[in-house]
Amino acid sequence: MSLLFKHLRVHQVFGANTDVGKTILTSALVRASANSGNVYYLKPVSTGPPGTADIEHIQRYAGTHKDRVHTHCLYQYQEPVSPHLAARLAWESKNTVIPTDETVVNSISHHVRQCASRTIIPAHMYVETAGGVHSPTLSGTTQLDAYRPLLLPTVLVGDYKLGGISSSISAYESLLMRGFTVDAILLFRDEYYRNWEYLQPYFADKGIKTFALSAPPALLPDPTENQQSTEAYYQSLVSEEGIAGTMEHLDACHTSRLEDLESMPKRTLDTIWWPFVQHQHFQKESDVKVIDSAYSDFFSILSQPKNSTDSILQPQLDGSASWWTQAFGHAHPAITQAAARASGRYGHVMFPRATHRPALQLAERLVNEGPGKGWASRAFYSDDGSTAMEVALKMALRAYTTRHGLDAIDRKDVGILGLKGSYHGDTIGAMNACEEGVYTCEWHNAKGFWLDSPTVGIKDGKVTITVPRSFGSAAAPKDLQSGDLSWTYNVESRLDSPLATVYRTHVQNTLDKLKRAGTKLGALVLEPLVLGAGGMLFVDPLFQRILIDTVRASQSDAPSNSWSGLPVIFDEVFVGLYRIGMETTTSILGVNPDISVNAKILTGGLVPLAVTLASDAIFQAFWSESKADSLLHGHSYTAHAVGCEVANESLRIIDSLRDSEEWKEAQGRWRYAGEKGRVWSFWDPLFVSTLSGLESVEEAMTLGTVLAVKFKDSNAGYVSQSAETMLSGIEHTQGGQAGFSSAPGGAPFGVHYRTLGNVAYFMTSLNTSSAVLRELEDKIWTTLAPPEVAKD
Amino acid sequence: MSLLFKHLRVHQVFGANTDVGKTILTSALVRASANSGNVYYLKPVSTGPPGTADIEHIQRYAGTHKDRVHTHCLYQYQEPVSPHLAARLAWESKNTVIPTDETVVNSISHHVRQCASRTIIPAHMYVETAGGVHSPTLSGTTQLDAYRPLLLPTVLVGDYKLGGISSSISAYESLLMRGFTVDAILLFRDEYYRNWEYLQPYFADKGIKTFALSAPPALLPDPTENQQSTEAYYQSLVSEEGIAGTMEHLDACHTSRLEDLESMPKRTLDTIWWPFVQHQHFQKESDVKVIDSAYSDFFSILSQPKNSTDSILQPQLDGSASWWTQAFGHAHPAITQAAARASGRYGHVMFPRATHRPALQLAERLVNEGPGKGWASRAFYSDDGSTAMEVALKMALRAYTTRHGLDAIDRKDVGILGLKGSYHGDTIGAMNACEEGVYTCEWHNAKGFWLDSPTVGIKDGKVTITVPRSFGSAAAPKDLQSGDLSWTYNVESRLDSPLATVYRTHVQNTLDKLKRAGTKLGALVLEPLVLGAGGMLFVDPLFQRILIDTVRASQSDAPSNSWSGLPVIFDEVFVGLYRIGMETTTSILGVNPDISVNAKILTGGLVPLAVTLASDAIFQAFWSESKADSLLHGHSYTAHAVGCEVANESLRIIDSLRDSEEWKEAQGRWRYAGEKGRVWSFWDPLFVSTLSGLESVEEAMTLGTVLAVKFKDSNAGYVSQSAETMLSGIEHTQGGQAGFSSAPGGAPFGVHYRTLGNVAYFMTSLNTSSAVLRELEDKIWTTLAPPEVAKD
Repeated sequence: MSLLFKHLRVHQVFGANTDVGKTILTSALVRASANSGNVYYLKPVSTGPPGTADIEHIQRYAGTHKDRVHTHCLYQYQEPVSPHLAARLAWESKNTVIPTDETVVNSISHHVRQCASRTIIPAHMYVETAGGVHSPTLSGTTQLDAYRPLLLPTVLVGDYKLGGISSSISAYESLLMRGFTVDAILLFRDEYYRNWEYLQPYFADKGIKTFALSAPPALLPDPTENQQSTEAYYQSLVSEEGIAGTMEHLDACHTSRLEDLESMPKRTLDTIWWPFVQHQHFQKESDVKVIDSAYSDFFSILSQPKNSTDSILQPQLDGSASWWTQAFGHAHPAITQAAARASGRYGHVMFPRATHRPALQLAERLVNEGPGKGWASRAFYSDDGSTAMEVALKMALRAYTTRHGLDAIDRKDVGILGLKGSYHGDTIGAMNACEEGVYTCEWHNAKGFWLDSPTVGIKDGKVTITVPRSFGSAAAPKDLQSGDLSWTYNVESRLDSPLATVYRTHVQNTLDKLKRAGTKLGALVLEPLVLGAGGMLFVDPLFQRILIDTVRASQSDAPSNSWSGLPVIFDEVFVGLYRIGMETTTSILGVNPDISVNAKILTGGLVPLAVTLASDAIFQAFWSESKADSLLHGHSYTAHAVGCEVANESLRIIDSLRDSEEWKEAQGRWRYAGEKGRVWSFWDPLFVSTLSGLESVEEAMTLGTVLAVKFKDSNAGYVSQSAETMLSGIEHTQGGQAGFSSAPGGAPFGVHYRTLGNVAYFMTSLNTSSAVLRELEDKIWTTLAPPEVAKD
Repeated sequence: MSLLFKHLRVHQVFGANTDVGKTILTSALVRASANSGNVYYLKPVSTGPPGTADIEHIQRYAGTHKDRVHTHCLYQYQEPVSPHLAARLAWESKNTVIPTDETVVNSISHHVRQCASRTIIPAHMYVETAGGVHSPTLSGTTQLDAYRPLLLPTVLVGDYKLGGISSSISAYESLLMRGFTVDAILLFRDEYYRNWEYLQPYFADKGIKTFALSAPPALLPDPTENQQSTEAYYQSLVSEEGIAGTMEHLDACHTSRLEDLESMPKRTLDTIWWPFVQHQHFQKESDVKVIDSAYSDFFSILSQPKNSTDSILQPQLDGSASWWTQAFGHAHPAITQAAARASGRYGHVMFPRATHRPALQLAERLVNEGPGKGWASRAFYSDDGSTAMEVALKMALRAYTTRHGLDAIDRKDVGILGLKGSYHGDTIGAMNACEEGVYTCEWHNAKGFWLDSPTVGIKDGKVTITVPRSFGSAAAPKDLQSGDLSWTYNVESRLDSPLATVYRTHVQNTLDKLKRAGTKLGALVLEPLVLGAGGMLFVDPLFQRILIDTVRASQSDAPSNSWSGLPVIFDEVFVGLYRIGMETTTSILGVNPDISVNAKILTGGLVPLAVTLASDAIFQAFWSESKADSLLHGHSYTAHAVGCEVANESLRIIDSLRDSEEWKEAQGRWRYAGEKGRVWSFWDPLFVSTLSGLESVEEAMTLGTVLAVKFKDSNAGYVSQSAETMLSGIEHTQGGQAGFSSAPGGAPFGVHYRTLGNVAYFMTSLNTSSAVLRELEDKIWTTLAPPEVAKD
């Protein structure tokens, strides 16, 4: 991940094009830097015969302080062609392995850190790329994409030639799209095209300084004369105001970058009000996680390294998938491109009575081929899971009260049927669909009735269904052990089991009791399979299925093609779109809802957007001659193009992951054969099973990307600190011993995680590499297992 | 704006760099197109001496159907340098005016439309740009930015040379960031660098076809031989599979573009559930506005042109600023770049106990220098105005109930004090802060008391304050006429007026009555100055000031540095950030709130993001030893980096607009001198005044970007159709007579507008040009004024 040292200013030099003087200007910077101390030059990949390499040029013209100049090349190829071709030729002719992007990035990272460790006084370093910003590197990935994990501050060498204004600006925009900070543009002061004249104000407007520098003399035929003239050129160039100005500016950028980062904790404590945080508990600067950037599954965070020569930026695994939003890792280029494309084409355009391609495509995909397949007819957009659930509730209540002809007064009393521990978002209306609890505010008005749920978990290695005592003596007196997870989630095959009868009786009795008590219910509202924020409760799917069946059977005269009993809402904000291994939970439950909600993963972890899907019968409840009967709910940015386009891109990426080897491999470990009713996880079955046997662990459970670990705690609940205490060691980088970790760049990393009382959970992206997963499992194990067990 | 013809396939040809064979490949396309019918070639800007121009080359090698090839150049300069330099030289030497971007775009648009009108059978057209994608055009703006309003489908000529992989990809990314659709990449099949081999799969992955075509022969010294060899090259090239494939592909793209657009109305009616729309009223395909793209203040919409040779895309003015969100026009490049930058650097990163630069900078700006200046201490992020108001309510209620030590039961009964017609968003909690009404749903629970408000409007040219009858006989029996708007909004100077006494008495009496009735109030919640969704009611600022003062005076023993009486919430979601001409309404009201909310303009009209600002006293109400006391509200995408970075960019743009000539000019018309208590508008004072005198108009009012027109209607209210009926003519393009309009590209345009019952409103961006405003005023006038008046 990103590297930043206090004493070593590192810049990566990119070119707007090939042959724009990148090596010459880097030489000048190296030579100027040598005047003030050590300078390191790294050329990660070099092509061409010996003697022609940039590294020789740098050394030859290093000036009077040659001894302070340390050069290195990681990969040298003889053929003077693009690195990806040179690597392929070497493979074809000499069977030389083509290094992967990961290997190259780790090697660069390792070398830069080594250079940093070799000096304690201020020094400079330059990492010179090859060709233009997007020239392919050894594996064939373009440099910008391959080197993005390192996110070194950059200098862009602009193009001084005809057409160079365009190529310089485009190269800058490619850097920008990958989050690089461009500290300066350097280019030759060509007096004919005068590109610098144009580019200086252009980039100044973006806060970037452009330096125009003397161009080199013409090549001379005599090598000695040529060397003398080149040496003279460098002497004059380095004493030029331009280079001095550049050096001063780059040093100032470095200083201000450090100052800014180090001031951020205090400034944050002074200005920010965090969600879900008791500020009294976090008053120290070290309590603030400064995220300088993020890439793949990792944050790059400000750390206080043990050694003063270490990087003050360190990787930390985003173990909660940034509050359950991440699907493909941070800063995925295709997601950024989708956002930029939609912003460039539409910005945001108003939606009522209008349409645009991104919103329409997304609606069609979700309704016809996605979670709405087979039952939904319409998509309604809003901003987040909470607003989308409020829309779902308004839909269901309208459908129910209209069918039953309730008057304005009676309508207000209609509540919902749900499960204890449900959570549908933080707005007050969504909260009213939940019981009173720690999350609810002054205006909370619990509107409904909530049942206890039997849950699924792995205890001491065994899949166990825990049935609440409230289910009565018909339920087994102790936990019912089931087969494996596939058996448990094969709902159809369990419909005739004795436990199904227990569930059916309990649900029917409850409904009867509610009816007798006159409780008015207008919707069945469920988080299918997993109650997320309520504590990562994995509800027995058989119970949810029987609950739905029973509710629907309670009305015998429902119109055909319409909902029966109560409209059923599936809140799939958390569980949907493969978070727990399937696109929608309908494939497990074997029944469709009348209304469903998606958010979080929907936008690939970039921006808020949510969608409420509804069946035609629900839609018809708003159909009338009066405008007042329409669904009078809408947010200013409804169906914003950026969110919709990013969602479309996310669904495309998911389609490609679905067929990937990584998924097949994980599924294979769970003997998932793709049949209906089976489940799988990205986590290793043996790891989960062993973990569940630890003394401190009550139970563990996993589906898809989610791992939940419930700790034994007599004071369980939201304010319990037990999970946090148990895992506190994992947040910070341990050991720090060399050797490459699975983090991009290979630095050791800590793990960011979130807890819900006595439950800790970890969540990966849909494309987290197996290497990262295995290392994460190791870290969890090392943190939780007692030393003697860990030695086994 | 964007042009699209059924019978004429138009492509704009961009180059990845200069000298990559743009003219040669365009020649080949022209020649191939001539085989099937008419073909038009436009070179908007050409530089170089006569005989060297691309246009001669195209004509010379047009092949056997030369007569079908029609070429044109709009701007020809002799100097063989970049167009912006050529234009400057011509200006310096011959005093030739440098055409503005608008002039160039209008000329291109005009010419393209003329070509389309000259043929009725299928034809092709190519518009060839100069140099690379970002090469500057005549004014100095880069071509991509200057030509963006036309948004023609594009062909990108890739770079076949060393470094060409990089420049081709970067050029593509620059096109993408401006929303262009790239139908194909064409490049020479260079056998040494073989860039096409790399680029074909690279772009295929993005759904774009790459065609590799034979490179031209070497230049021959003898002109005749050279011409023969070039002619032979074109003969062979045009018969090549590559060009045939390209033609077929471009034709297919055109066909599928048309089919897609024309299918969108039906598909939308089949799948989309619109907010705030009674679908029964809009069942026809023609009821659906298909927005193909947007730029500046205009949508580019699918239309059924009167003439079959007209463009099926037409501009339509976004007269509601896309539901009050737009601040700088659609697809502003700086906003797109901000979004891309943040996406590339962070994606979204979780926020509790963390910080990142975009979120911190925004919070500091809002708290210390923005609407929170002088009173706020903290920023809390959420997703939209509605969620941010729920957060504000939770803050206020906690502060109030904590100070007064209310128990869990009593807390539930605390309501708010507000104004009739208020609107704070569509979530149920925000709705509970409003009266029961058409917008409220089954679960609505009106929690509070709402006062009538005196309003400000212009009636028959006179600024008038209308005081409700409920204010009693002390109020003047008829409307109180005030001086001008500046007088009305100079609140301090009116505090001792007789009307102030009337207000004070009424407010005090109301508070006393509520107290006697035992009504528990926990916050004063106001939309300052304008109640937006409630019907664009411009409340007399003096009344809001006195209401706040009186509420605050009701508690004599409030701690110093804390709120007094009730916490005061300003909902500035609509009015804030210069929507009505000032950053915050505190500058008019002369008092600060304890909590305030911003959204909409905050993110420059791109993505949802909202912020709730709070004073330290409010923050302290959540400070305790218990996690359960913290503000347990947060959305998954809280403080998402894209939204925050876009907001930071928006605030920077606003800073630059504040000093702009356009603003000074508009302010000058209202004799706004920047003093406290004065107001101004982008609309012309005489226009508003005259409009208010129309027979059908009850009153008109304007502040900042907003113009509201209230029509006389005995059945006023949300479901009233009167405003819609009065203005129905304005939505569609009228006349359609030539002559350049102020829309980009100069085509005649209709106006999209929204109504609230008998009130129509229009809203511009903060940078809408004076030309667009004046044309919009003309259109409104022409639509509303009776013909005899219009002739005056």
